[in-house]
Amino acid sequence: MSENVPILQKAAVYSKIADPIEICDIPVPELSSTDVLVKILYSGLGKIDMDIWAGNFPIEPEVPRVGGHCGVGVVVQVGADVSHFKPGDRAGIKLINDACLCCEFCKRGSEAHCESATTTGLGINGTWQQYFVIKYSEVVRIPESLQIQKAVPILSDGVTAYRALKESNVKPGQIIAITSAGSPLGRMGIQYAKAMGMRVIAIDSGNANSQICKDLGATIYIDTNETTDLVQSVINATDGGPNGVLCIDTTGDSIELATMYVRTRGMVVLLTLPKDTQLTADVFWTVFRGVTIKGSFYGNRQDGDEALDFAARGIIDVQVETLPMEFLPKLCDQMSNAEITRRIVIDNWK
Amino acid sequence: MSENVPILQKAAVYSKIADPIEICDIPVPELSSTDVLVKILYSGLGKIDMDIWAGNFPIEPEVPRVGGHCGVGVVVQVGADVSHFKPGDRAGIKLINDACLCCEFCKRGSEAHCESATTTGLGINGTWQQYFVIKYSEVVRIPESLQIQKAVPILSDGVTAYRALKESNVKPGQIIAITSAGSPLGRMGIQYAKAMGMRVIAIDSGNANSQICKDLGATIYIDTNETTDLVQSVINATDGGPNGVLCIDTTGDSIELATMYVRTRGMVVLLTLPKDTQLTADVFWTVFRGVTIKGSFYGNRQDGDEALDFAARGIIDVQVETLPMEFLPKLCDQMSNAEITRRIVIDNWK
Amino acid sequence: MSENVPILQKAAVYSKIADPIEICDIPVPELSSTDVLVKILYSGLGKIDMDIWAGNFPIEPEVPRVGGHCGVGVVVQVGADVSHFKPGDRAGIKLINDACLCCEFCKRGSEAHCESATTTGLGINGTWQQYFVIKYSEVVRIPESLQIQKAVPILSDGVTAYRALKESNVKPGQIIAITSAGSPLGRMGIQYAKAMGMRVIAIDSGNANSQICKDLGATIYIDTNETTDLVQSVINATDGGPNGVLCIDTTGDSIELATMYVRTRGMVVLLTLPKDTQLTADVFWTVFRGVTIKGSFYGNRQDGDEALDFAARGIIDVQVETLPMEFLPKLCDQMSNAEITRRIVIDNWK
Amino acid sequence: MSENVPILQKAAVYSKIADPIEICDIPVPELSSTDVLVKILYSGLGKIDMDIWAGNFPIEPEVPRVGGHCGVGVVVQVGADVSHFKPGDRAGIKLINDACLCCEFCKRGSEAHCESATTTGLGINGTWQQYFVIKYSEVVRIPESLQIQKAVPILSDGVTAYRALKESNVKPGQIIAITSAGSPLGRMGIQYAKAMGMRVIAIDSGNANSQICKDLGATIYIDTNETTDLVQSVINATDGGPNGVLCIDTTGDSIELATMYVRTRGMVVLLTLPKDTQLTADVFWTVFRGVTIKGSFYGNRQDGDEALDFAARGIIDVQVETLPMEFLPKLCDQMSNAEITRRIVIDNWK
Repeated sequence: MSENVPILQKAAVYSKIADPIEICDIPVPELSSTDVLVKILYSGLGKIDMDIWAGNFPIEPEVPRVGGHCGVGVVVQVGADVSHFKPGDRAGIKLINDACLCCEFCKRGSEAHCESATTTGLGINGTWQQYFVIKYSEVVRIPESLQIQKAVPILSDGVTAYRALKESNVKPGQIIAITSAGSPLGRMGIQYAKAMGMRVIAIDSGNANSQICKDLGATIYIDTNETTDLVQSVINATDGGPNGVLCIDTTGDSIELATMYVRTRGMVVLLTLPKDTQLTADVFWTVFRGVTIKGSFYGNRQDGDEALDFAARGIIDVQVETLPMEFLPKLCDQMSNAEITRRIVIDNWK
Repeated sequence: MSENVPILQKAAVYSKIADPIEICDIPVPELSSTDVLVKILYSGLGKIDMDIWAGNFPIEPEVPRVGGHCGVGVVVQVGADVSHFKPGDRAGIKLINDACLCCEFCKRGSEAHCESATTTGLGINGTWQQYFVIKYSEVVRIPESLQIQKAVPILSDGVTAYRALKESNVKPGQIIAITSAGSPLGRMGIQYAKAMGMRVIAIDSGNANSQICKDLGATIYIDTNETTDLVQSVINATDGGPNGVLCIDTTGDSIELATMYVRTRGMVVLLTLPKDTQLTADVFWTVFRGVTIKGSFYGNRQDGDEALDFAARGIIDVQVETLPMEFLPKLCDQMSNAEITRRIVIDNWK
Repeated sequence: MSENVPILQKAAVYSKIADPIEICDIPVPELSSTDVLVKILYSGLGKIDMDIWAGNFPIEPEVPRVGGHCGVGVVVQVGADVSHFKPGDRAGIKLINDACLCCEFCKRGSEAHCESATTTGLGINGTWQQYFVIKYSEVVRIPESLQIQKAVPILSDGVTAYRALKESNVKPGQIIAITSAGSPLGRMGIQYAKAMGMRVIAIDSGNANSQICKDLGATIYIDTNETTDLVQSVINATDGGPNGVLCIDTTGDSIELATMYVRTRGMVVLLTLPKDTQLTADVFWTVFRGVTIKGSFYGNRQDGDEALDFAARGIIDVQVETLPMEFLPKLCDQMSNAEITRRIVIDNWK
Repeated sequence: MSENVPILQKAAVYSKIADPIEICDIPVPELSSTDVLVKILYSGLGKIDMDIWAGNFPIEPEVPRVGGHCGVGVVVQVGADVSHFKPGDRAGIKLINDACLCCEFCKRGSEAHCESATTTGLGINGTWQQYFVIKYSEVVRIPESLQIQKAVPILSDGVTAYRALKESNVKPGQIIAITSAGSPLGRMGIQYAKAMGMRVIAIDSGNANSQICKDLGATIYIDTNETTDLVQSVINATDGGPNGVLCIDTTGDSIELATMYVRTRGMVVLLTLPKDTQLTADVFWTVFRGVTIKGSFYGNRQDGDEALDFAARGIIDVQVETLPMEFLPKLCDQMSNAEITRRIVIDNWK
């Protein structure tokens, strides 16, 4: 089972930070002996892509750069030393690649914190290209029972939310609050939290978000526009505060409020990556109430497999809208103006 | 074995926040059926006493108030329903009392966070009196092999440091950094950390502190006066940063630096109780590096027993200077001016 | 709100091990200052009652003994020192009582292992009486939203299963196998496991059990009558073995098989209390595969509250058949002959 | 820095199970692109070597087989794709090799349980040869400050004991019992337990072992020849039983006794690999007391690094006797007759 791999391929590239994204032809990258060549069928489009492209990410890419932080497809070639994958296998590309598997962090299961790890679409060209070269040990297996497009958001927001929920240490039956709960990442958080037996209190603004959050399984919705005292509202609604908080809204104010409404001995998990933002909290009350603030960055390879497994079993479902790669330039403009909140997956071959 | 209990006793009292402390006679408190009456032989004198007295504590006591946050002595009477203690037993009074043992926090082993818990010398009269009434379930047993005066600082700084080290999740063989390491609390932290198999990097200023910290077992000392880049100095000295930090210096700057030099995936533990102090940290790097900031307040009853057990086995040793209660007024003035850093224990009967 | 408490009450008593159970009048027990008097409305009837009565429990009761290992009702009187409860409050009586709350085990949250703890219906008279005296700190609050009869099995099998599932360390998304899954305890285990996000593989015999287990949420059912190689069947059905096993069938053979089919690095939890039964396992394979065998006994007070909370939220449901206390003599005969597998609750007032 | 690698090398080989071990010339193995060629300077000689050779191991090697389960030396060649090591680097060979780093067990940090892992000297030729080929990701770095011969027992008994102590969940200040404490593995266990802040109760027979154990830091020694009731002796000496037990003596009787004297809620860790041995324990008491029995097999790569780090810092010290490879045939005879209990390291070049 082999497939002809062309010399050139279509890709979405920007030449400088914030310059227009252009669809152009670039060479298909070459394979080393421990690499796998993946034909990318669908790729992700998310806030992190916008932030990196627009210069709103604290680490800047070399340019020109192919964007796209994750994708899924099919293995078309494998290097001479690769036995774990064969052409025809489904394959996913994660946000984080190139972990060495030999440093202290890798050995302790924190591959995302390996010093040699790179971020897809930032340190290396991303998934907005038709072929992608990746070390075999980083390739994600996509379960056969999962519609392949749906694996895209699972590998992105899914892993991020799932890992953050694990890090929250909130147990089945306990309460997790999720801020910006109606956002794509928030919606994923609600679903995974519910699948993990947690009770979800969703925090966001507006009736549309209320409906979305409740439909996904949130038992309580707090509308930040409808309360003048968010801290007290959350505490009242949860009989003393949620055991944990997923801070998807990582503005400084929102985090500080979370440290105030989280239950005594509870955990505030930060999981998004804003530029030039400070968290603040009162030291006395943080100590006196035994509150924890924890940063959670993406997840490791096992988290990825587990997050996909929930989706493959139908416990998590995501609705995606598939659009051709040629729409990317326009989509990026719209997304960076916050005109799009639905979840879009790019078809790399249309 | 009974003992005559007088009607009046000597106590150190202040009438208003920051008013002079006076030694006067007050009634011996009465005992209910589940209480124990402890004749206090020695009591503690620490920064928290100064902060509460001087109005530098975010929660204010009712006045007049007997100060003193911990003490040790001998049981002299027990209530009708008390079978756990008998007259003649050694007894310790902790910082935290009156946990209900029936709420969610007590049931989960966080008695210090019980809503009915009170702070000795703040919510109730403290240990600067000769007799103390306390619910039997809160009395600490003092091991016979421990010189009783030495139990005073163990019940105070000892429990605080020991619990914070547990909360740090730093494992034997890993590295803990301790700021203000030469302070009384810091010195306790060094000893417990060493007893728990951790490697200690002490951070403070001056040669005197260097000697103190190394004598107690710190393997590395960083003098904040001798480095222009504390973050880099700590990272260099620890080959990537300590796995945990005990922030005894809880000024905002010091905490922020700790979040920067702590090892990726590491834990910054806050364990002191400053008034009107904000912690700040960069959100992106906290998330990207997977850093945790945790407040640790005192400890539970089991922590107290364990902390004492280390001391009773001679693993932890503290030098105390015993001074009579009548010195308290002057000592409080000196301590609040930071003229005293040695560890003083008050003899309630001299 | 007071209620007249009679001097005599109805109770189900046996005079010697395995002697017939008789309904007779006995005095209502007296209250001390820290006790609560509970009017028991409904009480449990379970395998442990049969085992204790019939002499099939390794620890024997003093006789004559009132049986009954758990019950629910309403507070009718409180001792002078009790402020946590008032007449009219709903109250539950657990399997374990009289924890001292002051020993090492209590302080570490293992009240069920307190040396002063007693087993209801074994060390003290049980719940087959109309009034029950209990220390206030042991009374369980029954949520108002829960039909009170349903709290009976939650306080018995519910807590046992829930705690064992916690002890199993199986995470949401992972697989738990449950042996004797169609038994009352097994059915409770399936429901809690599902509520905690686990995937359940039910092991038992017969089609009726298959239907029961699947209806409750088991995703796989293994019929021990339909396989000649249980170990291989379980491994095949779970792609390498379940991450944990709840051994409700604690015959030696069944446990040994569990140590063989559990996933490498997995946990076999034992949670029933057979007399004179040995577990056996091969040492080499236990070590080589990193298998853990753990005994889990009942739960602590917090487990009880949490188990009830799941039921109060409607996540766990149990069908109970309520029968009058006068049926007890006959029911005990039938149960000890295994003629009854449905869940029966005794109405103490009919 | 290159070194001439010969075509033939000296090795200690047996042709059939239990056949005499012979020193002969065999080819130096060839290197693939991801391998490292290590010149082995010193190799281990331990009970596992004897068991595998003599047919006392439940899994049998293919023959002829080069024995030797661990070794240390220097990198002399690296494959084309290897960047983590270079010629001249110190290198250690562990008991377990060839983990895939991509399966569920590897991703969860249990490389020793990877299905593709092999045991050195069992599944592949061992370290009783002068050159060894190994995948780069399995090579252990030997700290420069550690005398290289001493790394041999650390990589063997050291890692086994250290990991088992971690698995025991015994905390600093708590008590670990070690059976066969005077054996080479037991002596290592005492040292690591002490380094981890645990209190050690050593169990073995004879005065010589008593002296050895106490010199290494055991606080209590129980002589099995001097007590008629080991269970009671251990419980008395530890005020209720040790929190954990390292069962180095994994005869069935010894394990069963450990389940009886371990503290309530305690952990019995099995860490040796006897053939055809069953563990037994009473189910009721295992459940009622909440006892755990856990198999611990070797350790992962991070455990190896940590175990070496303790030794490099001088916290762990081992005395080794170095003997030339030509002594191996005779040593194996002596060891299998239990004539040797001191720790021997083989010099592969003498």
